[in-house]
Amino acid sequence: MNFASDNTSTVHPKVMEALIRANEGHAPSYGADALTEAAKARVREVLEAPEAEVHFIASGTGANALAISSLVPSWGKVFCHEGAHVLTSECGSIPFWTGGGTLVPVPGAAGKIDPDALAQALHESSRPDVHAGERSALTLTNSTEAGGVYAPAEVAALTAQARAAGLAVHMDGARFGNAVAALECTPADLTHRAGVDALSFGGTKNGAMMVEAVVIFDPARAPGLEMRRMRAGHLLSKHRFLAAQMLALLTDGLWLELAAHANAMAERLAAALAAVPGVTINVPRQANQIFATLPAEAHTRARKAGAVYHPWPRVQAEEGDLSVRMVCGWSTTPDEVDRLVATLRG
Amino acid sequence: MNFASDNTSTVHPKVMEALIRANEGHAPSYGADALTEAAKARVREVLEAPEAEVHFIASGTGANALAISSLVPSWGKVFCHEGAHVLTSECGSIPFWTGGGTLVPVPGAAGKIDPDALAQALHESSRPDVHAGERSALTLTNSTEAGGVYAPAEVAALTAQARAAGLAVHMDGARFGNAVAALECTPADLTHRAGVDALSFGGTKNGAMMVEAVVIFDPARAPGLEMRRMRAGHLLSKHRFLAAQMLALLTDGLWLELAAHANAMAERLAAALAAVPGVTINVPRQANQIFATLPAEAHTRARKAGAVYHPWPRVQAEEGDLSVRMVCGWSTTPDEVDRLVATLRG
Amino acid sequence: MNFASDNTSTVHPKVMEALIRANEGHAPSYGADALTEAAKARVREVLEAPEAEVHFIASGTGANALAISSLVPSWGKVFCHEGAHVLTSECGSIPFWTGGGTLVPVPGAAGKIDPDALAQALHESSRPDVHAGERSALTLTNSTEAGGVYAPAEVAALTAQARAAGLAVHMDGARFGNAVAALECTPADLTHRAGVDALSFGGTKNGAMMVEAVVIFDPARAPGLEMRRMRAGHLLSKHRFLAAQMLALLTDGLWLELAAHANAMAERLAAALAAVPGVTINVPRQANQIFATLPAEAHTRARKAGAVYHPWPRVQAEEGDLSVRMVCGWSTTPDEVDRLVATLRG
Amino acid sequence: MNFASDNTSTVHPKVMEALIRANEGHAPSYGADALTEAAKARVREVLEAPEAEVHFIASGTGANALAISSLVPSWGKVFCHEGAHVLTSECGSIPFWTGGGTLVPVPGAAGKIDPDALAQALHESSRPDVHAGERSALTLTNSTEAGGVYAPAEVAALTAQARAAGLAVHMDGARFGNAVAALECTPADLTHRAGVDALSFGGTKNGAMMVEAVVIFDPARAPGLEMRRMRAGHLLSKHRFLAAQMLALLTDGLWLELAAHANAMAERLAAALAAVPGVTINVPRQANQIFATLPAEAHTRARKAGAVYHPWPRVQAEEGDLSVRMVCGWSTTPDEVDRLVATLRG
Repeated sequence: MNFASDNTSTVHPKVMEALIRANEGHAPSYGADALTEAAKARVREVLEAPEAEVHFIASGTGANALAISSLVPSWGKVFCHEGAHVLTSECGSIPFWTGGGTLVPVPGAAGKIDPDALAQALHESSRPDVHAGERSALTLTNSTEAGGVYAPAEVAALTAQARAAGLAVHMDGARFGNAVAALECTPADLTHRAGVDALSFGGTKNGAMMVEAVVIFDPARAPGLEMRRMRAGHLLSKHRFLAAQMLALLTDGLWLELAAHANAMAERLAAALAAVPGVTINVPRQANQIFATLPAEAHTRARKAGAVYHPWPRVQAEEGDLSVRMVCGWSTTPDEVDRLVATLRG
Repeated sequence: MNFASDNTSTVHPKVMEALIRANEGHAPSYGADALTEAAKARVREVLEAPEAEVHFIASGTGANALAISSLVPSWGKVFCHEGAHVLTSECGSIPFWTGGGTLVPVPGAAGKIDPDALAQALHESSRPDVHAGERSALTLTNSTEAGGVYAPAEVAALTAQARAAGLAVHMDGARFGNAVAALECTPADLTHRAGVDALSFGGTKNGAMMVEAVVIFDPARAPGLEMRRMRAGHLLSKHRFLAAQMLALLTDGLWLELAAHANAMAERLAAALAAVPGVTINVPRQANQIFATLPAEAHTRARKAGAVYHPWPRVQAEEGDLSVRMVCGWSTTPDEVDRLVATLRG
Repeated sequence: MNFASDNTSTVHPKVMEALIRANEGHAPSYGADALTEAAKARVREVLEAPEAEVHFIASGTGANALAISSLVPSWGKVFCHEGAHVLTSECGSIPFWTGGGTLVPVPGAAGKIDPDALAQALHESSRPDVHAGERSALTLTNSTEAGGVYAPAEVAALTAQARAAGLAVHMDGARFGNAVAALECTPADLTHRAGVDALSFGGTKNGAMMVEAVVIFDPARAPGLEMRRMRAGHLLSKHRFLAAQMLALLTDGLWLELAAHANAMAERLAAALAAVPGVTINVPRQANQIFATLPAEAHTRARKAGAVYHPWPRVQAEEGDLSVRMVCGWSTTPDEVDRLVATLRG
Repeated sequence: MNFASDNTSTVHPKVMEALIRANEGHAPSYGADALTEAAKARVREVLEAPEAEVHFIASGTGANALAISSLVPSWGKVFCHEGAHVLTSECGSIPFWTGGGTLVPVPGAAGKIDPDALAQALHESSRPDVHAGERSALTLTNSTEAGGVYAPAEVAALTAQARAAGLAVHMDGARFGNAVAALECTPADLTHRAGVDALSFGGTKNGAMMVEAVVIFDPARAPGLEMRRMRAGHLLSKHRFLAAQMLALLTDGLWLELAAHANAMAERLAAALAAVPGVTINVPRQANQIFATLPAEAHTRARKAGAVYHPWPRVQAEEGDLSVRMVCGWSTTPDEVDRLVATLRG
C-alpha cells in the first residue's frame, strides 16, 4: 500500500528488458549511437513534430532547467503556478541555470494557472524598462502538481496570452502521459498545436528508471541547449541506456497504457474514498494524484497497517485538517487501492 | 576491435544483475532508500573513510563540477593540468557551477602536473589582493587523461604544495580503478592519506551503466553540496538504481578486477605495438590508455578492417604525425588486441 | 516643480566643495587613500559600530546586491517586501549576484513587511530538505518604497523572527537618512541594535553625486565581500572621490539636516494636498514621499504648468484612479511645494 | 614624484568645471537627461560611428565585463593576452558576468597578442563539439598592459583571424587615448574600421574622476547590454555626472592633448633612464608606461627621496632583477621626471 509517489515504484519489465537488449557490443558514446537516433525519431513521431530537437536527460529537474534556461535570457522572468515543482521543489534551479532569472508565481485552482491571474501578472510586469527586467517565458505543468489537467483549449488560451506578451512557453510534463491519457487527445494537440515551444516529456514517473526527453519544437529558439546540457553534466556517456528506456515506453503505446492504468487506479481510489465517512476529496480527480483530508483516527489506522502516503499541506481544504497526497503509479494494483480504503474505513 | 573509449563498452553482467535485483517493490525516492545507504557504506569501507560524505551522480562531469564547486568560493581559482578533462572537455562546467571560478592550467608530462610548474603557478597567483582573485583548489586526475598514474607519494607531494598555499584538493577519478589497480596500493593511500579532500570515484568507465560517487573526506569542507546537486538536477528520484551499480562494482573486488583487466589488455597492446615497425608509443603505458603514432598505411589498413580508435593530437610526438589514442576497457579481449596489432602490422 | 524623485536633484554644495578639495595631489588608488580611511571611520562613528566593515560603492543597486550576496549562499532565499526596490526595480540583481538566489515577496502596508505575513512565509519555507532550498536572509527597506518608516521596535520584531529562522538581515537604506530623521532615533538603534547585520547606507538621494556605503556590522558574516565588489566592477580606482562625498554628508550632521528638510517639505505637501478637493493621500506621510490620488483635471493642470511627478500604480487606492508619487528632496523649496498645490487646486 | 599609476592622479580642472556646471537644476535620472544625450552624441562623433550604442559606466572593470558579457554566450571562450588586465586584475569578472565563460590566455611581446600564437590557440579550440565549448570573442588592450601599442594594421590582422573563426572583438581602451595619441591615427581607424565590435573607451586614467564609455559599433550584437548593466548595479541614477566628465574630455580634443602629454612625459623618462648606468628599459616605450630594471642602490635612493612606483615582476628582463613599472599621467610634469631620473642616477 505505497502511494507516496510515482517515483517510488519499480521500473516496468519492458523497460528493463530494453536495457538488457541494449547491453550488447560497443556503441559510440555521448548520444552518437543508433539507439539514441531511433529513440529521438520515435519521440518526434509520437509528438507529430518531425522538426523538433530532442534530448534525453536523467532527471526531471534537469529537463525543466535545461529547457527553460535555453529559452530565456539570463535576466528573464518566468511565470509559473505558485505551486509549480520548478518553484517549490527544485532548489532554485532556474535562477542557477539561467544565471539570474526569476520565477514569478501565479495562482489558480488545481495547480492550473488562472488566466485572469496571468493577465494581471503580465500587466504588472509590462513596465518596459531596465529596472523591472524582462518577461520571458511561461511554464505550465501538465498534469499539474495538484492533480489537475489542462485541456488543449486551456493550454492554447494561456499560450495565446503568453505569445501576445512575447513569452516562450514551456510545459513540465513529468506526468505528461497522465494528462494525455486522461484527455484522450493527441500529444501534439496538447503541446505544439496548442502553442507550447518546449516540453519536458517525463519517462521516470511513467515507468522508466531515469529518463526524460527535452523537446524543442522549433530548434531555432534554443540555440545553446547542447552546450548547457554538457556543462551541467547531463550528457551521459553510455547514452544508449537513456535512449533505450524512452524507446521502450514509446513502443506499442506502453507509455499511455501505463498512464491510463495509473489514472484508473486513482479514479478507483477517489471514488472509494469519497464514500468513506469523514473523508473529503480536496481537488476533483483528473489524473493519477488524489488530494484528500482524512479523519485523524483513519489516518492512524492506515499508518499502522503500513500504508505509505505524504501529508500535503500545500493542497488542503482548511487550516488544521490532515491533508494528504496519494499517488497511483503504473504498478499500483486494484487490491492495494481496495486495502487502503478498507483500512481507512476501519 | 573497438578502442575508442572505455565508455563505448557495455555494462558488466554483474552490474546488470544488480539492477534487476534492485527492481523489486517500492523504495523511498531521492536517496532515502536502503540500497543507497548500503552503497554509501561500502564506498566508505573501500576508502577506509568512515566519516566521509558520499553521493551518487550519473555523470563524471557532474561529479567533478559538484565536488569542486562545493570546495571553492564563487571567484576561486582552481589549478589543473593543461590537458585535464575538466578544462578541455567539460564545456566550462567549473565557471558555470561555481558562478565565476577560473581554471588555471599547469603543464607536466603524461598528464601529470609538474611540481615545479605548480610551484611557479602558485607563486604567480600569490598576489594577496582583490585584483588577482583567490587561489582555492587543485584538481588532479588519476589515472590521467594522457595515460599517466600518480603514485601516492606523488599525490602527497602535490597536495603538500597545495595545502601550504591554502588550497583544497580534488581528485578526478573517472579512471580511479585503473590507477589503484596499476599501483597495487590502497584507495585510502592514494586519496585522503595523501592529502586529497574530495574524490570523483568513477564507476561508468569501470563497467557500470552510469554512476560516479562524489566523496568528501571531511564533510565540513563542502556544506552546500546537497543543495548544489539538487538545483543542478543531479538528485535522481529512483535513486536505488544508481546505488545498485556502485554496490555491484564494489562487491568482491569487481571494480579492481575489471580495472586490472583493462590495464593488462593495454599492456598487451603496448608491448605488441612497440614491436610493429614504424609505430611509436608516445607515453609509457601506465594504466589502460595507449597513445601511439602510426604509419599512415597501417592506420588505413586498420580502419578498413573495422578498427575503431580516435586521432589524438593533444598527446603526440611531433607535428604532422598520426597520433592516436587507444583505450582498453573491462570488455576488451586478448583476441581483439591481437587482431588490431596484426592488422596494423599488415 | 520637480517631484519625480530624490535622484533628479543636484549635488549639495558642501559635497561639491568636498570633491574639489579632494582633487589635490596623488593618492593611492582602489581605496588605499587617507580620505577613504577617514570616511570609513566616520561611518563607523555615526553608526556607533567600531568593528563594522565599510565599503563605498557608486550605486544603490550595487550596494544592495553586494551586501545581500555576501550574506547568503548561492541558492539562498531572501525575503523582501512585495514592493521592495530590490525585487521590482533592480532587474534581477539578486539572482545574478548570488548566482542562483531567489527573492520571496511578503506583503504589508506602507511598504513595511507584515510580521504575520513574514511568519507565514517563513513557515511555508521551513521544509527542511534539498527540494525547497534554504531560507537565508531578510531585507527591509527603511524608509520604504511606499513612504513608510519602520521604528526600531518594528525592526527588532522582524529581525527576531528572522534570527529565530536562521536568517541574516539586511537593510536597504537608500533613504536611510529620511527614516532616521523622521524617527529622531540614533542610526545604531535603527540598525545593529535592532538586529540588522548589513546596511546599504544611501548617500545619493540624500544629496551626494553617487555614493552609498555598504556596512557589515559583523565582518565575519561576509568574508568574500571585497572579492565580490571587485569582480562586479565596483571598486573605483580614484576612490577618494567616493569617500569625499560620504564624508561631507556625515560632517556636522549634514545628512540628517538634508533628510529632515526633505521630510518637512513632504509634510508641507501632504498637509496642503489633503485640503485640495478630490485629492486623496493613499499612504499616511512618514518620510519624504507622498502617494496620492488626483482628480484628472487637477493632474492635467499641473502637467501643463510644468510640474513633474510619476504615475505610481503600485501604491494606489482603487483600480482606475490616477495614483501618483511625489518625492521631496534636499533641494525642494517651500515655494515649489506651494506652487504645485496651488496649481492642482486650480 | 608619483609614477604609481595614471589612476592615482587628480581630475583635470576642465572635467571638474564640467561637473560643477552640470550641477544645476533637476535632470531626469538613469541616463534620460540631455547631458547624457550630448555626451553619447559626442562619443559617436569622435569615433565616426553614428550608429553606435554608447553607455557610460564608472569603472574600467565594469566596462570590460559589460561589453564582453554582452557579446558572448554564457559558456563562451574569450581569447586575451596572458597579461591582460581582464585576466590578471579583475578578480574573475568575465566568468562571473557571463555566468560561465572562460578566458584563454595567449602570449606575445609588449602585451600584444602574437598572431601566430593566436592562430595556434584558435586551432586548438576549433574542435567542433559540446565538450570543448565555444570560442566566442577576442579582447585586445590598446595601449597594452605592458606599454605596447597596436597599430591599426595590427588590430586589423588580429580581427581578421578572429572573424574567420567566428569571434566578436572587444578592445579594452582603458588607455585608448594614449594609443590614439601615439599613433596619430583616427579613433575610427583603430577600432571599427579595423574590425573591432566593442570598445571600452577609458576616461578615468585619461583625466576624469570615474567614467568609461562602453561602445558597441553594431548594436545588434549586444541586445541585452542595458539589462546587464542595470542588474550589475552600473546604471547610476544621477547619470548626468558621468556624462559631463566624458563630454569635457571629448571637447576641443582635451582627451588627446592629455594623452599626448602623458606619452611625452614617458618618452622623456625613458630617454633619460636609458642613459642612467645600470638601468635597462625592458619594453621599448610606446605609450605612457615604462618598464625598467633598476640597480638596487638606485631604487633605494629613489624610495628614500619619496619616489613612488610599483615593482612589476610580470614584465621583466631576467629572474631576480628589480623590475618596475613607472606610469606617466596627464598631471606628470617634466620637473617630476627629471627629479626622478636625477635621484636614480645618484
